[in-house]
Order: sequence, then C-alpha cells, then structure tokens
Amino acid sequence: MKKRLEEELGIEKVSTNETELFRHSHDESAHAAVTPDIVCFPESTEDVTKILSVAKQFQAPVTAYGVGSGLEGQVIPVKKGISVNLERMNKIVDFSPKDMTVTVQPGMTRIQLNEEINRYGLQFPIDPGADATIGGMTATNASGTTAVRYGSMRDQVLDMEVVLADGRVIHTGTKAKKSSSGYNLTGLFTGSEGTLGIITEVTLKLHGIPEHIIAARCTFKTVEECAEAAYTVLANDIPIMRMELVDASSIKQVNEYGDYSFPVAHSLFFEFAGAKAAVEAQVVLVKELMEELGCEHWDIAERTEERNEIWKARHQMAYAFRHQKGKRFLGTDICVPISKLPELVHYARNLLEESGLHGGILGHVGDGNFHTLSLFDVDNQEDRERSERMTDKLVLKAIKVGGTCTGEHGVGLGKMKYQREEHGDAVEVMKSFKRLLDPDNMLNPGKIFN
Amino acid sequence: MKKRLEEELGIEKVSTNETELFRHSHDESAHAAVTPDIVCFPESTEDVTKILSVAKQFQAPVTAYGVGSGLEGQVIPVKKGISVNLERMNKIVDFSPKDMTVTVQPGMTRIQLNEEINRYGLQFPIDPGADATIGGMTATNASGTTAVRYGSMRDQVLDMEVVLADGRVIHTGTKAKKSSSGYNLTGLFTGSEGTLGIITEVTLKLHGIPEHIIAARCTFKTVEECAEAAYTVLANDIPIMRMELVDASSIKQVNEYGDYSFPVAHSLFFEFAGAKAAVEAQVVLVKELMEELGCEHWDIAERTEERNEIWKARHQMAYAFRHQKGKRFLGTDICVPISKLPELVHYARNLLEESGLHGGILGHVGDGNFHTLSLFDVDNQEDRERSERMTDKLVLKAIKVGGTCTGEHGVGLGKMKYQREEHGDAVEVMKSFKRLLDPDNMLNPGKIFN
Repeated sequence: MKKRLEEELGIEKVSTNETELFRHSHDESAHAAVTPDIVCFPESTEDVTKILSVAKQFQAPVTAYGVGSGLEGQVIPVKKGISVNLERMNKIVDFSPKDMTVTVQPGMTRIQLNEEINRYGLQFPIDPGADATIGGMTATNASGTTAVRYGSMRDQVLDMEVVLADGRVIHTGTKAKKSSSGYNLTGLFTGSEGTLGIITEVTLKLHGIPEHIIAARCTFKTVEECAEAAYTVLANDIPIMRMELVDASSIKQVNEYGDYSFPVAHSLFFEFAGAKAAVEAQVVLVKELMEELGCEHWDIAERTEERNEIWKARHQMAYAFRHQKGKRFLGTDICVPISKLPELVHYARNLLEESGLHGGILGHVGDGNFHTLSLFDVDNQEDRERSERMTDKLVLKAIKVGGTCTGEHGVGLGKMKYQREEHGDAVEVMKSFKRLLDPDNMLNPGKIFN
Repeated sequence: MKKRLEEELGIEKVSTNETELFRHSHDESAHAAVTPDIVCFPESTEDVTKILSVAKQFQAPVTAYGVGSGLEGQVIPVKKGISVNLERMNKIVDFSPKDMTVTVQPGMTRIQLNEEINRYGLQFPIDPGADATIGGMTATNASGTTAVRYGSMRDQVLDMEVVLADGRVIHTGTKAKKSSSGYNLTGLFTGSEGTLGIITEVTLKLHGIPEHIIAARCTFKTVEECAEAAYTVLANDIPIMRMELVDASSIKQVNEYGDYSFPVAHSLFFEFAGAKAAVEAQVVLVKELMEELGCEHWDIAERTEERNEIWKARHQMAYAFRHQKGKRFLGTDICVPISKLPELVHYARNLLEESGLHGGILGHVGDGNFHTLSLFDVDNQEDRERSERMTDKLVLKAIKVGGTCTGEHGVGLGKMKYQREEHGDAVEVMKSFKRLLDPDNMLNPGKIFN
C-alpha cells in the first residue's frame, strides 16, 4: 500500500517514520494509543481523493488527523490503516470581508485564521481552548468558552467540501446566510467525526471584534452557589461573552501548575464584550446580582494582560490536571437544560467526594455544559474503574434530565457506550446513514458506534 | 382504505367530505391543486403511526398538512393518497420557562404559541408572516422578517419527535442547548418537508421579549440604493430586529389593497428592539447612516399601533398581489451573500422591466433574501411562461454567485428543477437518504426531488 500511495501522491507526502506513527497514535485523552500503518500528508482535495481510492483498493481504514488536540480519541486509528494528516492543507481559499465569511482548508488552525482576519476587524470566535484545526473543530462540532454567545461550530459553518468514501466530492451548502433548499447536509457532516467523509474545505461565518472587553472573577462558598449564580445571569438575559465555572480544586491545581495566585475558592469567570457603554452597564448589573446572591469576592480585569491571564489560566486547567507525572484523567462533558445545572453540579460534587479521587469541576455553565475531571494513576486499575463508574453515573443522570453525554468533545471512543441510551432508536437511523455512505466501514471505523 | 383508517382511528378522524378534500388540495401558491383521496385528523403520535401503517398496507402516499400557508406546494398531494391534517395536535407538551424551551405538537400555530408564553416574558420570534403551524415551519425551515436577528427554524429547533415511514418513532435531539453526540438528525429533518418522516413534536428555544421597540421607514430613489443601505447597516454591525426592502410597486399595491397611505417610494422598513437606551442609540445611528446615503424620507413609529400597522402592511404585501381577481403570481425566494445583494436586486428589477409583467421586489434583505413577484393572468399561458423564464434567470444567477434557490419557502414543487444546479452531486446523497428512510416513496412523494 505504501508504494501505491507514494506513486499516487509522491514520496514526500507519505511516511512510516516511527516518530510520525507515534504522533498520530494518540490525542490529549486517556484513550489507549494505536499507531497507524502509514501517515499521509495530502496537499489538495485531489490528494485526499487519491488516498481514499488507494485505501479502498487495500480495504484500509482511513482516519483524519488535525493537530491531535481532541479529548475523545477521534484521531486514534483503532483499526490501524492510514492516518490522513491535513496540516499542509492550511490555506485560506476565499475570504470575503464584506460578507463576513471565509473559506479555509481543514488544516488551518483557529489562531492562524484569526491572525489572517483580525486586521479586517473580524474574528472567528469559537474557542475550544486548544489551537485546534478548523477541520477538527468542524468534525467534532466543537465549541468552548464563547458558545454562550456564538453557539457551536454547527452554528458557524455555512458550507463544506467533503470527499466521500467512494471518492465523490460534494458541497454540503452554499455561501448564503440561510437556505431551505434540499436536505441539510452541512449540519449532518458537522460533528460526524470523519466517519462519513473527509472535510477538505469549510466556509465559516465571521463576526466583528467587540469594541470593549472586561473580564471579571467572583467567588462563592459552594459550587452549587456558582451554578445558581450562572443561572441567574442567564435568566436576566445578559448577553455575556463567556461565563465559566471553576471549582476550588481546579483553581488550586492551576495555581501550582502555572504559577498563578488566584484565590482558592469556587469561582465564576466572566467576560463581557461589546460597545463600551453596554459592557460597563452589564458589569454593574452582574456585580449587583452576584452580591445579592452572596458572592464572597468580586474582581474585574479591564487591561488586556490581566484579561489574558484569566483566560490563559482557564484554558490551562485541564492540562494542569493531566500533566501530573503518572496520572491520567477521565472527563465528563455533559450538557443539561440550564434549570438542571445546579442539581447536576451538586450531584457531580457528591460523586467526586464519594469516589475519593482527586479531581475538579469546571466548564461552560452558560450552556449547561460542564466537565468533571477525575484523576487516577496510570497503573492503578481500581482507581481507573472508580473514575469510570463515576463518569457513567453522571452521564446517565444527565441523559435522564434531558441532556446529552457530550456538549462539545464529541463521541469518539469514550461516549460510544451512551449512544443508545441518549438517542434510542435514532441510533439505528444514524448507523444506516453510516452504512449508506461508507459501506466498507473505511472511514474512521470504531468511532461513534460500536 | 377508508374503512381500515376508520377502524384504526375512529370515524371522527377520517373524512372524504368534498369541502375537506378541496381544502387539502392547495396552498397559497400558484401550483395546481390536487385533491387527496382521504383526509385524516390524528390526535396523537399513535394515530400518526396507525395512519402510516394503513398507508403502507395500501401503498398510499401520505402528505402532512398544517394550515396550508406554504408557498411552494409542499402540502399538495400530487400523487393523491392521504392528507394528514395535524390541526388537532396543537397542544403544549412541555413548557420550561426557566430553560426558555417549549415542546409543542406540530399543529400549534406560532400565534397560539406566543399567546401561551408571552405572559412569562418569553416569545417565539420566528415570523414568516402567515400564522403557520410550528410543524409546517419546521418542515420547511421557515424564517421571515426576524431572521436577521434569530436565524431560521433550524437555529431554533432542539429536538423533534418524528414518525418514520416504517412506523418507528424517534427523537432527533435532546433538550440541552448544544450537543456533539451522534449525527445531527435535528438539522436534517428540519426542512425535509415531510419527505423523511412526520413530525409529531417539536422542542423550541424561546427568547425574552425586548423591553423597547421602535419601527422606522425610510425611502430612496432606487431599489439599488435601498439594497446598498441595507448592506451598510449590516456592515456597521447594528443588531437590528427586522430590515425589509419594499419597492414602490409593492407599496402602491398594499396601499390599494389595505387602505394604507404609505408614500409610494422604494423603502426600507426597520425594527429596532432591545434595552431602551440601546434601541434609541441604534435609531440615531441608522438615521445618520441613511441620511448620509441620501435617503429621501425618514419616519419613526414608536407607538405600538403605528408599529403594528407597518408590519401588518408588510405581511399583506404578497397577499395584496395575489388577491387580484384572475391573477396569480410566481415568486422567487433567492438568498445571496450580502455583498451580492445590490447586484441581484438590480438584476431582478431589470428582468421585471424587460418582462413587461406587473410585479414587485420585497424581502428580508438583512439576510440577503428577497422575493421578486411577477403577476400573470390565470388564462394567459404566454404571460405565465414569461414569468417562469424570469424566475429561472434570477434563480440561476443567485446560485451562480454562491446563493440558494430558496431562502425560506422550501423546495416543494417550484424549486425542484434547481436542485442539481445548486447542490451538484450532493443531490444524489440527499436522494439516497430519502430511499433509505422511505424505500416505498410514501412520504410526500413528488417533492424536493424529481
């Protein structure tokens, strides 16, 4: 197969180098690494088509790879075969500032994209923390800290070019802001995790850069109070830009890891953004609300460096837990109806305490989405099982109250077992789509469905 | 078949009354009426399942019917069979003001829904003009005058209960605000026009009722100037609630039809909504912008009655054209990237002038979506053909610049012929989904695809 790929693509686009195989064997999750047989580096849609054609000939699995920042093992080639690294397809294909849209290749990262467009007063605001690729973010329907304002990737993608398993190249949408034409393939391919096709272009909506930004932190005695406070902000219809819950344990962890000195207390991190007067009015109102709810401490950060420090710390929290020698963590990614948030946060905290595991609760509470991280020793099977049991309980509870097993990380390997519980018979419909578009189960096999 | 349906449902839910057959033979479009063989009035999901089971037994087509306010013939049972009128399924199933979500049966209309929820300070803002059912709006991915702020139905639907052709009842989503779990069936069934399943429940996002609303009208010498002005408002990132283009011909028509006295000039109708101070600031800014662009006339309406008159007139415009004795019209529903709007409006106006037909240009220019209506005598085949040729030219031009043949009305009968031009090979993927879920082509056959 290597020879055929080299003939089709050129030798510089094919590698079986050990280091490359290792790099493409894992992501940022605790899921077991599996090396691919070969890594390819396509430079065009045509290259991707060629790879799929060779793969079909050899009945080899094909798994797309962005930068490996995923958290559910989506890029791990569990059935071996070809890992398709899209890093060389990282150009802007078409940029229309007037339309506030851009078409990019899938390997462009969100920071690269923003560097190109910020000077036009435009931004692409979806922010999962990591500097993920647009292709990876689209494939997992990623979101992050700004979802409370801008939604998920699915809300931002207008069109995709996708190479199907049989080599057909299709466009899923158009560049119009809305359409009622045909079936909505854009939404379907967004979040399909490379199991239905390989994304080779993505057209995104862009947004103006807010005139003024203020960040704030406030602390409460309990995580439950934080969750109630977050709910109060939403109920008052305040158009916040970010609103993050971080429990005391996570604060402690990031202080140690990143040399910060945040007060070790259950906290809400806020960002307010927009026209200056509107932002200032929002800050006054939220401060009042938080004080009424009995917050212990309220702090604002108006200077860019202060603000950046807060969000940098927030983004480092998962890493802070992960990068302890010999430790791994499992994380939930549940998202529930907002009114259920305090109840679920309470439930999560109790489970964490009962389990005796070290961990933390943090997340995008403006969407009802939060993560419960539980650490275990790599070699301690019993700890890992305790962590798994806790995760199971929390996810099943979230589904029971009308929520989802994954708000933003995707299904990958870790959330497969909850698909039937969450979707019921709809899983059979999903599986039938998979069989229809990929009858040989070549595209990222072993993900989403068993 | 009638006997079997009566046995399954009870005789009070089955009708072959001439008046009922006629009511279910047409919608508000110029597409030729076709009467169904039978009309059913299900009162539950179970009833819908029974209807599909009997239909399967007799290989009878099944077409869902809301109130018949559609504009592309989606409810016309072109292959006869059963028309499923969902008007008795018009209840709220679940309402959670705290979550700002509601689950309704498909036969509830948008005005009924708002009457139930407005007292909680909440609204469902999607407004296609007609008092359409939520099921019909979901099935066509409707939008309307508020799409510039709230998007289309697809942006508002969180979950659906759907009965599939084989009788399976599935849920497409959850009640969480976002999810990355499984394939996105919610987006796929939204806008599928009853061709993939019958919607029996819809869970919607709700929104707060704005504190303050101001409407305004302004007039320009040409429609092209109106389009440029609309573009300028968007480019200045002003969060308007509605922004509608209405050409002089449409104003004249509605003045005559509805006894209004709007100045007969090419106009933009605006609505500003939100916190009082913010709204007032927006009005000042937009007035300045419009004056810089040379508007001839600027008028604001702050009182509720004045505002209502403006939007009532706007909603009556299509009717004003249609309700001329012996006349029918064809309308385009193109939606293009915003930067192409002035060019396309110019193109539309020239085509209309060249055709010699009476007609007008109006639409939701904040989305790049506008309608060009052209009237013809019912008996004048030549006029009708001229109208069709004009429509063809305009739609193909819209697709060519990256737009869509339908921004909000859906494909139905009228936009079928543009599907391949717009979607290319993706049409084959769409058709394969249809064959997969409805192998006997029972569900609304003859729509979307040939």
